[in-house]
Amino acid sequence: MPPNRYATSLLLLSIVLLSWRICHGRKILIFPLEGSHWVNMDIVVKALHSRGHSVDVVRTDKSWYIKEDSPHYKTITVPVTEAFNPDFINPILKKVIDIERGESSVWSFASLQAEMFSAMFNVHRIMCKMATDMFEDKDLMKTLKDRKYDLVLTDPAWGAGILLAHALKLPLVYNVRWITSGEGHMAIAPSPLSYIPLTGSGLSDKMTFIQRVKNHLFSIIWLAQDVLLIRPQYQALCDQFFSSEVRYIDLLHGADLWLMRVDFVFEFPRPTMPNVVYMGGFQCKPAEPLPEHLEEFVQSSGEHGVIIMSLGTFVSQLPADISNEMAAAFAKLPQKVIWRHKGVRPATLGNNTLLVDWMPQKDLLGHPKIKLFVAHGGTNGVQEAIYHGVPVVGLPLFFDQYDNLLRLQERGAAKILTLATVDKDNIFLNAIQEVLHEPSYRRNMQRLSRLHRDQPMKPLDNALFWVEFVMRHKGAAHLRTESYKMPWYSYHSVDVMLFLLTTAVVALLFVAGLLWSCFRLGCKRKVKLD
Amino acid sequence: MPPNRYATSLLLLSIVLLSWRICHGRKILIFPLEGSHWVNMDIVVKALHSRGHSVDVVRTDKSWYIKEDSPHYKTITVPVTEAFNPDFINPILKKVIDIERGESSVWSFASLQAEMFSAMFNVHRIMCKMATDMFEDKDLMKTLKDRKYDLVLTDPAWGAGILLAHALKLPLVYNVRWITSGEGHMAIAPSPLSYIPLTGSGLSDKMTFIQRVKNHLFSIIWLAQDVLLIRPQYQALCDQFFSSEVRYIDLLHGADLWLMRVDFVFEFPRPTMPNVVYMGGFQCKPAEPLPEHLEEFVQSSGEHGVIIMSLGTFVSQLPADISNEMAAAFAKLPQKVIWRHKGVRPATLGNNTLLVDWMPQKDLLGHPKIKLFVAHGGTNGVQEAIYHGVPVVGLPLFFDQYDNLLRLQERGAAKILTLATVDKDNIFLNAIQEVLHEPSYRRNMQRLSRLHRDQPMKPLDNALFWVEFVMRHKGAAHLRTESYKMPWYSYHSVDVMLFLLTTAVVALLFVAGLLWSCFRLGCKRKVKLD
Repeated sequence: MPPNRYATSLLLLSIVLLSWRICHGRKILIFPLEGSHWVNMDIVVKALHSRGHSVDVVRTDKSWYIKEDSPHYKTITVPVTEAFNPDFINPILKKVIDIERGESSVWSFASLQAEMFSAMFNVHRIMCKMATDMFEDKDLMKTLKDRKYDLVLTDPAWGAGILLAHALKLPLVYNVRWITSGEGHMAIAPSPLSYIPLTGSGLSDKMTFIQRVKNHLFSIIWLAQDVLLIRPQYQALCDQFFSSEVRYIDLLHGADLWLMRVDFVFEFPRPTMPNVVYMGGFQCKPAEPLPEHLEEFVQSSGEHGVIIMSLGTFVSQLPADISNEMAAAFAKLPQKVIWRHKGVRPATLGNNTLLVDWMPQKDLLGHPKIKLFVAHGGTNGVQEAIYHGVPVVGLPLFFDQYDNLLRLQERGAAKILTLATVDKDNIFLNAIQEVLHEPSYRRNMQRLSRLHRDQPMKPLDNALFWVEFVMRHKGAAHLRTESYKMPWYSYHSVDVMLFLLTTAVVALLFVAGLLWSCFRLGCKRKVKLD
Repeated sequence: MPPNRYATSLLLLSIVLLSWRICHGRKILIFPLEGSHWVNMDIVVKALHSRGHSVDVVRTDKSWYIKEDSPHYKTITVPVTEAFNPDFINPILKKVIDIERGESSVWSFASLQAEMFSAMFNVHRIMCKMATDMFEDKDLMKTLKDRKYDLVLTDPAWGAGILLAHALKLPLVYNVRWITSGEGHMAIAPSPLSYIPLTGSGLSDKMTFIQRVKNHLFSIIWLAQDVLLIRPQYQALCDQFFSSEVRYIDLLHGADLWLMRVDFVFEFPRPTMPNVVYMGGFQCKPAEPLPEHLEEFVQSSGEHGVIIMSLGTFVSQLPADISNEMAAAFAKLPQKVIWRHKGVRPATLGNNTLLVDWMPQKDLLGHPKIKLFVAHGGTNGVQEAIYHGVPVVGLPLFFDQYDNLLRLQERGAAKILTLATVDKDNIFLNAIQEVLHEPSYRRNMQRLSRLHRDQPMKPLDNALFWVEFVMRHKGAAHLRTESYKMPWYSYHSVDVMLFLLTTAVVALLFVAGLLWSCFRLGCKRKVKLD
């Protein structure tokens, strides 16, 4: 090869390697959240890895959900003294059911609220303890700095990942549904309370006057919880480890990109910001074939089809009377039923019902024999039901579950029941039969499915594009308003309004005074002339 | 062919035809606006035609810009008695220059504003006259109804297309930058005046207190112009041709999709809505080779490169003294200059300057020899300069031109001059030399260009996808909030605030009363005990 051709080849090779480095091969630090949030994050982690990025995941040595090193990520383990206990949910569930059954007073409702608040406080306390352990571990922090990551990706429902990004001076991207002050949008986009229902309020985007009052009261509760209980914990960390001018709330608002785990087939239409990327349904995929025994069971349902039921990751056990009533209702149906169930086998279980510890929910939802999904209303399950067009009977328990199901019910694609009262008057059986036999439920859900699938890009591909965009350009400042740095009275133009009002009043008084003087002068002259 | 195979083939053929019908071959009715707005719309029309849709364009028989039938559209011509006169701009330009030169009093500024208002009023009056002619032409309306269009695409800066969509009961899509109350977003997305500068205010998204006051005053002017002068004209048409309950403002707000002719490399970050699709730069394409004589001229510039200058569609002639000063400044430069110029040839013209009637602006901007663009700041020119990464010296005249250029200047990619004062102290020459020789201008503009081009889809392809989405699903109601239908006091939660405030005051008074009674009771007892 002549020297100049050799040089050209070398040049070409370096250009190829350079562009590969530009498009791929970045280093990403993930600070995830435990539980079902990690299930979501893991999907994004796998996708980032498959695009050639190297991914490190921060976890504690007492991690409940996040496994140590996997083929698609390495872990950075922080030794901690205290860990989050996922079993906090069962006593709360019992209280919820007692209240729904009317076996409780107003005081027990207040005590439930207090318990929920205290649980949230505790979760964030443990998270801040972990962050302290991490920031005080000089070797760990040096390792993290030396790794020269291109990006921190975190779930802002817990704030420690946000602080870590600030400590490492790295661009920040969220995989988000929740922040400490409620649903993710509330922090970043103007949210007129007249048509943006607060989560937990059980309201839709069309409210009566009383409902709008309720919505305002809910916003006060969220704000109080955030400002009094949660934010100060993270602010204390800022004060301890950063300069005194660093406000946690600014760090939270200042992320380059928000990958929002909803879309507008699911969520009510509302204002948004240019740095919000919607990836609702990013986890959804066409169904894969079922394991042989499940496929056989499903096929045995004949023309009647199959109902599946799951109440999610958290709830391991329902009260026996409720389980028995549900099993009895299922037993009366010609359909087959697959029920993700833990605990004592219901006494009334029919031959048509299969209890399972775990089920391939996505693949079942995509199976043509599945007629109905009995679900608790977690965001993931709802998005998967939309993707596959399967109507829902909803049994919401807590968190956002009622609100998620409400979004389906409002579009005529689901019917919501109160878990605690499903043992009365065949409510459960009737609801299932209604959703099975009234064709509008399936038709509406299939319409949502068509709308959801009709996008120019797959939601996950779009999200990955924008994550890589932030790495290519070292941030996305041009998509992010900095208006959150203004004092609240300037942001809401209270100062300008007061100024304009004062000016108008002074001007009016001046004119009035002038007119009065003229009038009096006129009178005097008149008197003189007279 | 056996009968069942014949049937299968027929079935397959109908499926193919049906899916072709679903994906393509829709009928679209375009109601465009004259002038530079038609230049934009024509690009979308061509693209829709190339995707297999049949496009009809509504024009008047006195149309100034819109040609009769072209290979990519058919026209529906409305005979009108009065037509829009594009020459209204020259006397306004003269007044602008007089004011900028300080040769005018406060009164002439007020008279300029009045003239602008009256010009706007007149434009809409003529448009409403045309709409009346159209709605009264029963045969024309019947033809339009019988054509069974799938969609109306219009520019809402004039409202007649909106009314036509309502009359024909069709989904409505906007190709939009302007509406009667200002920039398109103002109608649809919450726009906190603390960081969303009104167009015409010459403000950025970071404002001092006084600037925020100015912004509020501008919003009042826009609102007054809209509510007093323009909206009533369209409302009168609604009252005449539709039922009395139809509010023009609801029709304006109720469009399915807003194709916004900006993006956030150009526009300051701000709230938006799910049914806004950003297609800023949709008209931009890689440069094509120049005509031979221009390429020769450009190449003759050697290492110094070329400057191009254009003041857009509207301005045909500049005052002679200004033209002469500019020509003299150009003559002092080692660069070559291509100047889109009409009217008398400047006496001071140098050998390096080529005057042209028209130039292939896009192809010139994309030529590697072009170093600088002297522009008036129309949205199209600014977007093309961003696309090709050419820094700008701006000579804004009116409308949004200063604001457009300000968005470049704020990012360090342009320098704005006042047209009327370029004949003083070598201001023009110095500005050109600064932008040519200070490398940050080019670097910043090239950065904007990289950000703008780094998108998952081309802006026009994305816009076409969403237009076709609306046709496939007969609207996009799930992306559109209906909050605009609320009364203003409910939308802004004034009623809820008053209710909560009253309740709080009553509760406080009650508690205070109670405490007072207890106190008095205590006093009485004490007196008794004593």
